[in-house]
Amino acid sequence: MASQSAAVSDYLAARAPFIEQDRSLRRENRTANLRSTKEIEADQLVRRIRAQEADTVWKEEHEDVAHPFPGMEFLTGKKIIIQTKIFQIMSKMPKGALLHAHLDATVNAEFLWDLALKQPGIHVRVAQPLSAANLATNLPEFRILPSSLHTDIPSLSDTSYTPGSWVPLHNARDSFSTELGGTEGFDKYVISSMTINPAEAYGTHNTVEKIWQKFISTFITSTGLIRIEPIFSEYIRQFLRSSIEDGILYVEPRINFLYKNMWGADGQENISHREWLIMFDRVVKEVKAEMEQKGRGGEFIGAKIIYSTIRFLTPAELDWYLEDCIALKKEFPQLIAGFDLVGDEAQLRPLIYYIEPLLKFRERQKEEGVDIPFIFHAGETLGDGTETDMNLYDAILLGTKRIGHGFSLVKHPKLVETCRQKGIAVEVCPISNEILRLTSSMLTHPLPVLLNNGVPVALCSDDPAVFGNMGLSFDYYQVLVASELTGLSTLGALARDSIEFSSMDEREKSAALAVFERKWAEFLNSVLSEFA
Amino acid sequence: MASQSAAVSDYLAARAPFIEQDRSLRRENRTANLRSTKEIEADQLVRRIRAQEADTVWKEEHEDVAHPFPGMEFLTGKKIIIQTKIFQIMSKMPKGALLHAHLDATVNAEFLWDLALKQPGIHVRVAQPLSAANLATNLPEFRILPSSLHTDIPSLSDTSYTPGSWVPLHNARDSFSTELGGTEGFDKYVISSMTINPAEAYGTHNTVEKIWQKFISTFITSTGLIRIEPIFSEYIRQFLRSSIEDGILYVEPRINFLYKNMWGADGQENISHREWLIMFDRVVKEVKAEMEQKGRGGEFIGAKIIYSTIRFLTPAELDWYLEDCIALKKEFPQLIAGFDLVGDEAQLRPLIYYIEPLLKFRERQKEEGVDIPFIFHAGETLGDGTETDMNLYDAILLGTKRIGHGFSLVKHPKLVETCRQKGIAVEVCPISNEILRLTSSMLTHPLPVLLNNGVPVALCSDDPAVFGNMGLSFDYYQVLVASELTGLSTLGALARDSIEFSSMDEREKSAALAVFERKWAEFLNSVLSEFA
Repeated sequence: MASQSAAVSDYLAARAPFIEQDRSLRRENRTANLRSTKEIEADQLVRRIRAQEADTVWKEEHEDVAHPFPGMEFLTGKKIIIQTKIFQIMSKMPKGALLHAHLDATVNAEFLWDLALKQPGIHVRVAQPLSAANLATNLPEFRILPSSLHTDIPSLSDTSYTPGSWVPLHNARDSFSTELGGTEGFDKYVISSMTINPAEAYGTHNTVEKIWQKFISTFITSTGLIRIEPIFSEYIRQFLRSSIEDGILYVEPRINFLYKNMWGADGQENISHREWLIMFDRVVKEVKAEMEQKGRGGEFIGAKIIYSTIRFLTPAELDWYLEDCIALKKEFPQLIAGFDLVGDEAQLRPLIYYIEPLLKFRERQKEEGVDIPFIFHAGETLGDGTETDMNLYDAILLGTKRIGHGFSLVKHPKLVETCRQKGIAVEVCPISNEILRLTSSMLTHPLPVLLNNGVPVALCSDDPAVFGNMGLSFDYYQVLVASELTGLSTLGALARDSIEFSSMDEREKSAALAVFERKWAEFLNSVLSEFA
Repeated sequence: MASQSAAVSDYLAARAPFIEQDRSLRRENRTANLRSTKEIEADQLVRRIRAQEADTVWKEEHEDVAHPFPGMEFLTGKKIIIQTKIFQIMSKMPKGALLHAHLDATVNAEFLWDLALKQPGIHVRVAQPLSAANLATNLPEFRILPSSLHTDIPSLSDTSYTPGSWVPLHNARDSFSTELGGTEGFDKYVISSMTINPAEAYGTHNTVEKIWQKFISTFITSTGLIRIEPIFSEYIRQFLRSSIEDGILYVEPRINFLYKNMWGADGQENISHREWLIMFDRVVKEVKAEMEQKGRGGEFIGAKIIYSTIRFLTPAELDWYLEDCIALKKEFPQLIAGFDLVGDEAQLRPLIYYIEPLLKFRERQKEEGVDIPFIFHAGETLGDGTETDMNLYDAILLGTKRIGHGFSLVKHPKLVETCRQKGIAVEVCPISNEILRLTSSMLTHPLPVLLNNGVPVALCSDDPAVFGNMGLSFDYYQVLVASELTGLSTLGALARDSIEFSSMDEREKSAALAVFERKWAEFLNSVLSEFA
């Protein structure tokens, strides 16, 4: 027996370093020996609470939640998530930077709707008179009209409604038929048109291709409300304020510049891209001033924009946008952080289709003396060797600064190595990936593969207005509860990476990191004092 | 423009080797330059048919199939799969070896049921009188009884039935109440108890934990039918015959030796493990002779056994099985290929729990002059850093010859590298993983990560009697249609790996490979002649 025990001791002595070696690339382990006693204690406490909640709130029967488990489908599980202590802890956690969010899907749909209801001149139309039978598919389109075009059409839901004609918003709302729920029914109809519900994601539209149809349709409704100058500026303000309240200290949204103008309050579509940037800059400064005034100046470092357009353009059309982007960068060097092509990668054009203008773009930047890194969406797919999957090769060969989604990156050993070695961070959007059916729950998400391979990762929310994952607390929650290996120190490393791989300049990064570390220490204290 | 085109040419010239490098570890690429013209043509043809079927049969509306797509949930998609040309092609393909299948779940449930109906002396019992309300959960248990214990209880479904009392099989069947479907209803009830249906996998039991409960329950019903000497030998025969018909030339099933005896035709539970092996050996030889007689001798190389017991034993109990395994290996050196611990990894004991007896097992083998490699199940889990996930470390440190499932292996860079370098093949069971809810469809299976990392892989069916994926054609189908990168050459490499990493000796492997290559060439011819 003595010799057996020696054999076991020898085995265990070899086992520990083997496991350690396998985990040695994880970015939190680079500074593992620097972890404070408090961080270690808080980490252990959070693991205990997580285990406890997995056995209690996630094991109980819940009405309307057939199979509850930690990391489950977000739209169904949200009502359980918000009951947990772990979610309370995530809400308090400082998050660093938000690096992947589409501006026009960052603000709660109800908030946008309130803004719209206060804005004069907005009209609405549908493709056929609204009825109970077509309510789910007959989506509202909004437009602010100049006074010369204002109408007095009384209702969208009357059978006499002429399809496609513009009805004043308040007429449509006030006269919405009682069978469809009256005013409240109208509000619900509009909000549903701008969000994805569980029945859609997990039932009627339960494939990547189908849910993308629903996803895209939400923008048809919201764009007519957001692309109005006075609403747009309030929308940005709310995005910044709500991000700050969730512990985010810097944001780098993608703005879609496809439309060359937005509407003014007068209903004229003549507000140009440079005016959008002036507006953005003004609101950022106002929110900064507001935070200073509250004595919370350090909590908001700022915001930059990733210039985006859609990957259905022709290469010739794209040229216009590339020149537009260069011109804006020259006028607003602090605001333009990078360039991206967005839209459904699987249905639209791959990067290689645009190789000529994209290579020219780099040349033109040299000529103009500007630096606008690519920050490409790539590999947001279940495909293996498809054009969408292969966008990863082109994103990296074109020198992308980060990769948006990179869902299929883990399939590519050379690319994983390249990302680790060159410091190309992946903008991982856990809840977005799940609702868009790339993964059935957080348990099957490839994030652990990236983390164990030492690829830098920033967690991101993508389109929280559509998905309901406002801020970053929900995304951090899903990541934390879906892995035993992941702890508070992992989340801290993710937040630090979001700062390190942002487009802030070195001075801004230092400021941001200093704020983050102070907030992080406060956070650990509060976890230990409130949840022990 | 001229310089732009040069820039594009330079880009493309750098792109091709970059992609090639990323794919260079794929095992089919080791011999890519040896591919015959026929293989290249057949590969291209299969890709065209696959693309065509993705756009036709997989795009059509199918009654009862809500969201058809290639690689979808197997139990729902099977009715579409069998309509495709790709499935016809897969059925013709030579498969090499089957390296991961639990013997008592390898034969079609209907076939087993037919055997049982012909066997005198079998009785059946349930925990409460059968009714429409409890039919799905009140599972039948079977036992062959010695004539002294035979009963004449008339029915299972009569309210006068005493729970737990044994009813002669034919009484139970003939008297099955007409409200429950009579004889046919009884057959359906028994078959349903031994298989998983789509509503269970994708509805009522749609989590790993829940579907495992159903999965385990199927063995409660089937074990009482299989563990009867005359049925067991016919069961083995059918397993071998149906494998051969599917193009499998060698099998290496896991046999569960937990029960120390099985029943004889006389209803005595006294057939010992060594008698099981004698029976197995006899049937293998009979099937070989049968194949020789048909002039198809080369199509069946043979079979070996992986000795398995269940991971709920105590370490002290395990000792008995390890010694039993050694004794059997000494008596039947050609039959015992390895040792494994089976059962739900997440609910039962991790390998580390058995470290003392497992290390002692290695010592005892040296003393006895035998070599019984471990061939462990490990990492059949969605966990990240859980005990089940960590079984992978112990499997590898203990020198496992292959890894059963290894579903979570892709999370571990060091282990992936070790498997590639040391030639530890992974027994990947695509359909099993999907039905047991580790992946929602083949599109989210980690197999492409293993392939691109050069890890040797053998495709396996695991428990086809329960899942309905008889043979390997269905598993190969799911793999082929879920990836654009995967082609016939990939499948050929998988089949060759199944031979190379089997427990055949070198002489057997050479014979098997020679047969395989001949069959492969015939297969390519038939693809080109029948499907072009």
